[in-house]
Amino acid sequence: MIEAIGNQYVVARPVYSTKTFGEEFKKTHGHHKTLLDHLRRCCSCSSQKAKKIALSLFPIASWLPAYKIKEWLLSDIVSGISTGLVAVLQGLAFALLVNIPPSYGLYAAFFPVLTYFFLGTSRHISVGPFPVLSMMVGVVVTRVASATNTAPEFSGSPENATDQEKIMVAASVTVLSGIIQLLLGVLQIGFVVIYLSESLISGFTTAAAIHVLVSQLKFMLQLNVPAHSDPFSIFKVLESIFTQIQKTNIADLVTSVVILVVVFVVKEINQRYRNKLPVPIPIELIMTVIATGVSYGCNFRETFGVAVVGNMSLGFQPPITPSVEVFRDTIGDSFGIAIVGFAVAFSVASVYSLKYDYPIDGNQELIALGVSNIFTGAFQGFAGSTALSRSGVQESTGGKTQVAGLLSAVIVLIVIVAIGFLLQPLQKSVLAALALGNLKGMLMQFAEIGRLWKKDKYDCLIWIMTFIFAIVLGLGLGLAASVAFQLLTIVFRTQFPKCSTLANVGRSNIYKNKKNYADVYEPEGVKIFRCPAPIYFANIGFFKQKLIEAVGFNPLRILRKRNKALKKIRKLQKQGLLQVTPKGFICTSDGFKDSDEELDNNQIEELDQPINTADLPFDIDWNADLPLNITVPKVSLHSLILDFSAVSFLDISSMRGLRTILQEFIRIKVDVYIVGTDDDFIDKLARCEFFDDEVKDSIFFLTIHDAVLHILMKKDYSTSKFNSSQEKEMKFDFTINTNGGLRNREYQVPVETKF
Amino acid sequence: MIEAIGNQYVVARPVYSTKTFGEEFKKTHGHHKTLLDHLRRCCSCSSQKAKKIALSLFPIASWLPAYKIKEWLLSDIVSGISTGLVAVLQGLAFALLVNIPPSYGLYAAFFPVLTYFFLGTSRHISVGPFPVLSMMVGVVVTRVASATNTAPEFSGSPENATDQEKIMVAASVTVLSGIIQLLLGVLQIGFVVIYLSESLISGFTTAAAIHVLVSQLKFMLQLNVPAHSDPFSIFKVLESIFTQIQKTNIADLVTSVVILVVVFVVKEINQRYRNKLPVPIPIELIMTVIATGVSYGCNFRETFGVAVVGNMSLGFQPPITPSVEVFRDTIGDSFGIAIVGFAVAFSVASVYSLKYDYPIDGNQELIALGVSNIFTGAFQGFAGSTALSRSGVQESTGGKTQVAGLLSAVIVLIVIVAIGFLLQPLQKSVLAALALGNLKGMLMQFAEIGRLWKKDKYDCLIWIMTFIFAIVLGLGLGLAASVAFQLLTIVFRTQFPKCSTLANVGRSNIYKNKKNYADVYEPEGVKIFRCPAPIYFANIGFFKQKLIEAVGFNPLRILRKRNKALKKIRKLQKQGLLQVTPKGFICTSDGFKDSDEELDNNQIEELDQPINTADLPFDIDWNADLPLNITVPKVSLHSLILDFSAVSFLDISSMRGLRTILQEFIRIKVDVYIVGTDDDFIDKLARCEFFDDEVKDSIFFLTIHDAVLHILMKKDYSTSKFNSSQEKEMKFDFTINTNGGLRNREYQVPVETKF
Repeated sequence: MIEAIGNQYVVARPVYSTKTFGEEFKKTHGHHKTLLDHLRRCCSCSSQKAKKIALSLFPIASWLPAYKIKEWLLSDIVSGISTGLVAVLQGLAFALLVNIPPSYGLYAAFFPVLTYFFLGTSRHISVGPFPVLSMMVGVVVTRVASATNTAPEFSGSPENATDQEKIMVAASVTVLSGIIQLLLGVLQIGFVVIYLSESLISGFTTAAAIHVLVSQLKFMLQLNVPAHSDPFSIFKVLESIFTQIQKTNIADLVTSVVILVVVFVVKEINQRYRNKLPVPIPIELIMTVIATGVSYGCNFRETFGVAVVGNMSLGFQPPITPSVEVFRDTIGDSFGIAIVGFAVAFSVASVYSLKYDYPIDGNQELIALGVSNIFTGAFQGFAGSTALSRSGVQESTGGKTQVAGLLSAVIVLIVIVAIGFLLQPLQKSVLAALALGNLKGMLMQFAEIGRLWKKDKYDCLIWIMTFIFAIVLGLGLGLAASVAFQLLTIVFRTQFPKCSTLANVGRSNIYKNKKNYADVYEPEGVKIFRCPAPIYFANIGFFKQKLIEAVGFNPLRILRKRNKALKKIRKLQKQGLLQVTPKGFICTSDGFKDSDEELDNNQIEELDQPINTADLPFDIDWNADLPLNITVPKVSLHSLILDFSAVSFLDISSMRGLRTILQEFIRIKVDVYIVGTDDDFIDKLARCEFFDDEVKDSIFFLTIHDAVLHILMKKDYSTSKFNSSQEKEMKFDFTINTNGGLRNREYQVPVETKF
Repeated sequence: MIEAIGNQYVVARPVYSTKTFGEEFKKTHGHHKTLLDHLRRCCSCSSQKAKKIALSLFPIASWLPAYKIKEWLLSDIVSGISTGLVAVLQGLAFALLVNIPPSYGLYAAFFPVLTYFFLGTSRHISVGPFPVLSMMVGVVVTRVASATNTAPEFSGSPENATDQEKIMVAASVTVLSGIIQLLLGVLQIGFVVIYLSESLISGFTTAAAIHVLVSQLKFMLQLNVPAHSDPFSIFKVLESIFTQIQKTNIADLVTSVVILVVVFVVKEINQRYRNKLPVPIPIELIMTVIATGVSYGCNFRETFGVAVVGNMSLGFQPPITPSVEVFRDTIGDSFGIAIVGFAVAFSVASVYSLKYDYPIDGNQELIALGVSNIFTGAFQGFAGSTALSRSGVQESTGGKTQVAGLLSAVIVLIVIVAIGFLLQPLQKSVLAALALGNLKGMLMQFAEIGRLWKKDKYDCLIWIMTFIFAIVLGLGLGLAASVAFQLLTIVFRTQFPKCSTLANVGRSNIYKNKKNYADVYEPEGVKIFRCPAPIYFANIGFFKQKLIEAVGFNPLRILRKRNKALKKIRKLQKQGLLQVTPKGFICTSDGFKDSDEELDNNQIEELDQPINTADLPFDIDWNADLPLNITVPKVSLHSLILDFSAVSFLDISSMRGLRTILQEFIRIKVDVYIVGTDDDFIDKLARCEFFDDEVKDSIFFLTIHDAVLHILMKKDYSTSKFNSSQEKEMKFDFTINTNGGLRNREYQVPVETKF
């Protein structure tokens, strides 16, 4: 039982090395699960397990039977209609990002919802087109579809050969990314999403917003911009735009600027009076209706030559077989699309799952999105995920389950099969402006840079590098480079650990960085060195260098100098020029000549060996004065304590390096102690043959203080030859000597010890 | 002063939270160096610094004036001649790996030595062709030089158009990799080599040996194998070879097998009788002389149609301008060549610098190798580094300085300008066999796999993956993939930390994993949780999950249940159905109906807020029985201690996650303590606005034991209403209750405390 004694920390126990502690407190040996056990458990089969798996594959089976029609249906209907209208507009607008006719965006908004309804675990996200993903598909489309330099023309039939090819590419990429998602989900590796840190996602979406912005410029200005593919495409597009800026269609420019301004202002109002408005003003819908009306009424298309949505063929396209050739060309991009799509959908879903407290399953989400994308791609849609804004609408208008999603799909269906033709006079520039209206939030993320810089330089670096990579290399390749860079920062963070020398503060068992405190106590001849990071191949060199700096000498050099000196002493002794006295040994001759002769290979290797004085009739005290002409640097250090409490692992390279340096210290008679490690650590070292006659496993102590006390006791023994078998009543006092001398108490602890 | 009291660990001091400790022991504030200071120091200029830089740029200026002609010259001459002969043979053989005529290998053996003599810092390495590097250049050469499917034919003039192009590509790649090395050196980023761990290098060189083996097969069998480029080239080459194995030139096969066997046997003898032989048998030289003689005498070329070295044009080729087009195509490969070349040279140089105790400078080595490669490339040689075997010869035959290197170059020069024609009848298969003879050591590294598996699974994985990547993707791309994978392992190692619950072992201040010990003490209602790795974006989720598992409940869920219950209680109270008694409160009505009503958004957000009972006239004890129909899970935990002594850093993502979970615990009245962090850690949290009214900076304690004592004291106060202002003589006893009951002592510590 431990009792609190006022506000006092009072401990009295034996000094423990890890070994003595292990002897006193036996470890229980739990059954260690082997790989086989895991496999067995994983592959075991039971009807219950099968049922569970089936249920998890079709989450609808869990939630639909529990659907509360009376309470939920009405709000689901309201939410479904609102979401559906947004989905129509976003579908049309984002299709422009993919560089295919707008009507195909409606398919992308319709199909994924159907499968997600059955397979998805989130109740609140609205699956379908997402600008960043549309953009990524668009990049592939422009690259792969033979880059014929024709801008989308306002012909009555957009189904010309180029468009057909583009649609084919978009669909194939969508199917492939769906297959990848499905595979990842089945293989249960949905966890990859954890490699996308917040800073990375923030930087990446900001870059994506810039890409979207640039790609929409041509629609807003109605310019003929040739297709460019990664990398550096963004600069090429900007160049094209600025070289022909005088060709701008003024009607389109005016329309899009007006729409942008109105949308921004109304969105600001929506935001500011969020609590007072019963429902946000559906400004996008209003603007679309007005713009369509005006465009139709004034016949913009023929008066000003603006590009309009054009022919909306009612109904669906027949399903297609994706092109395997496109698969081969786009596997990298598809992987990026699969990951980004999943990451966005999953992070939005997590927000709602936390808020409404229901579980979502990453792997099932992957499967749901994968099947949705395959399904959508087969019907000539393009890859979807979830748009934050649309999911926001679905949830804020009261959506309770995916029934709302299904209803939104019905709205899209109505537009596809019945009233789509109404949208024919709508200018493409209006769609572009509406798409841009959604970017404000993403572009505002630039403010993150300053915030991150103040908090964590590495996170700031991740943001900036992700942004640069995504802008310069394009979204797919940029994402890969960013993830690689981000993982590299984990290495950077541990690569240059802030090693420090510790000393006792407050004369108890507290050891802190010597530099930070004025009144510290460092036992004589003892160095306490702390490494605050794992040690591995990339920082073992740094660790060694810091350790050598901390102790002030290179043990290998000392060892060599001593061995050289020993050779000379041996020579002197052989020549009978040395006399051993009780006080040491003296040189009886002044005539000994120190030839700095060259040593050959074998001799050099000898110098690294332990110092062997067994054949000499005397011991050598290396810190005393040696005979004439022989000098070795004096080493006042007798014990080195390495605080490894924050060294979470060692790898093979670092183990070898550590062993070498320990050996070097031990060979020059510096005792090395390692403290603060856990038992696994020592077991692993033992398994790696770390220990031998020189580096023993008795160097481990529980805490720094244990090691320090052990060293003090050892020194005490060796100097005063204290008889340890003696039994006596010890009386000792120790003083808590606080810094300012505020308190000065004496503890008289009569101890009856039985050693 | 700390004194050793027998083998006892006795400590008595106040309990310290980080805050109280900081108040008692003031920190000294050292001048914190800013980025600007570093820059200033870095850019400051003085004549001394200029001189130092100049000296470091031309290391020869330091060592040549100190050259001891009398002692060193002879051994340098002997070493130079031996090394030179090896260099000639290796140059010829490795040129085959590059797929260019053998005579160009002599240039590669000659030129780099000249510049390295002036610029290099290592005294023992023999710069020049290295098989792996030659192989890497060869891969580029076959890819870039228009892949005309002609095998090297035994025409009298190898200088046909294809060969010319190949030589051009090899030279350009060499120059480019030289430029990269030079740049890396000037920018002082020679440290990149630390990213190549031992396991990686071992796996990579083994794969390279396999590549070399496969690429030499066609010369040994004298087959016409079309050029293949990465990836999968090795399989394609093998396929080509096996489909036409019947076309093997028997004379070449026999010659190479004989040579291989003899070389292996003699090398084995050299190895075994290393100590008895005055100098290793120069078997390669002997075999070359014999093979040349036999080939010339029997006119092998015409009798058996074997391929021979052929025309050795005496003298040098004029320097060429490298092709910028090739630069563009090969930048990735050149980077790989630059890094591998440097890594190999540097690691060999390090071995000798350690052995002979002189400093080498990584960045200067990069500069030296870079200049050497540019120089060599300009004179139509190919990229060099150092061959381990050749450097071994230079050092073991007594080479003391780079003067030996220079003399070896003279030997190569003699062959180039005078006696090269003697080698014309030499079979190419002999050169191939000699090159293979050097691979034994590298191939033996397969044994590493088993050794690494036993020691460290991750290192073993690095070896295997590096090997697979380098075999399948080719050496350049494979190296990049391996380094990326290796860095990923650092993330893997920390990504799933072995979190554990600690408990007191031995009733003193020792806390160990609860599972490992039988007799442990866990204070009631206190959980001590240890995370043994840094926490960052990739493992914060895992950390949370493990923490929730350890405490046994999800704090957010508890918080929501309590808030829901509170709403009901408030409603009951408003309806006057609750009566408050001194013992708590009771519900006076059975008729209260618990409607599980749906909550809207704002209400759900409310549930996550801190529990506010200020408006209620009573306190609620959540662990007591609540009025009818209201149940919340009981939580017996009152304090949670997080041992962060091994958490070396937090990033922004993890900080946010950690803050959320701390908040959740605090809101359900679980006190959280964080122990074992250093001061920087807390400073950083403060900078990142981690603390507020709920998560305070007073949660930090120095050690687990401090926190436990603090908790015990606090509980003591709150239960017994102990008056802290009271002064009294405390008398307490505590027992060291060791596991086996071996000792059982009582300490009577009369303490005069003044609180």
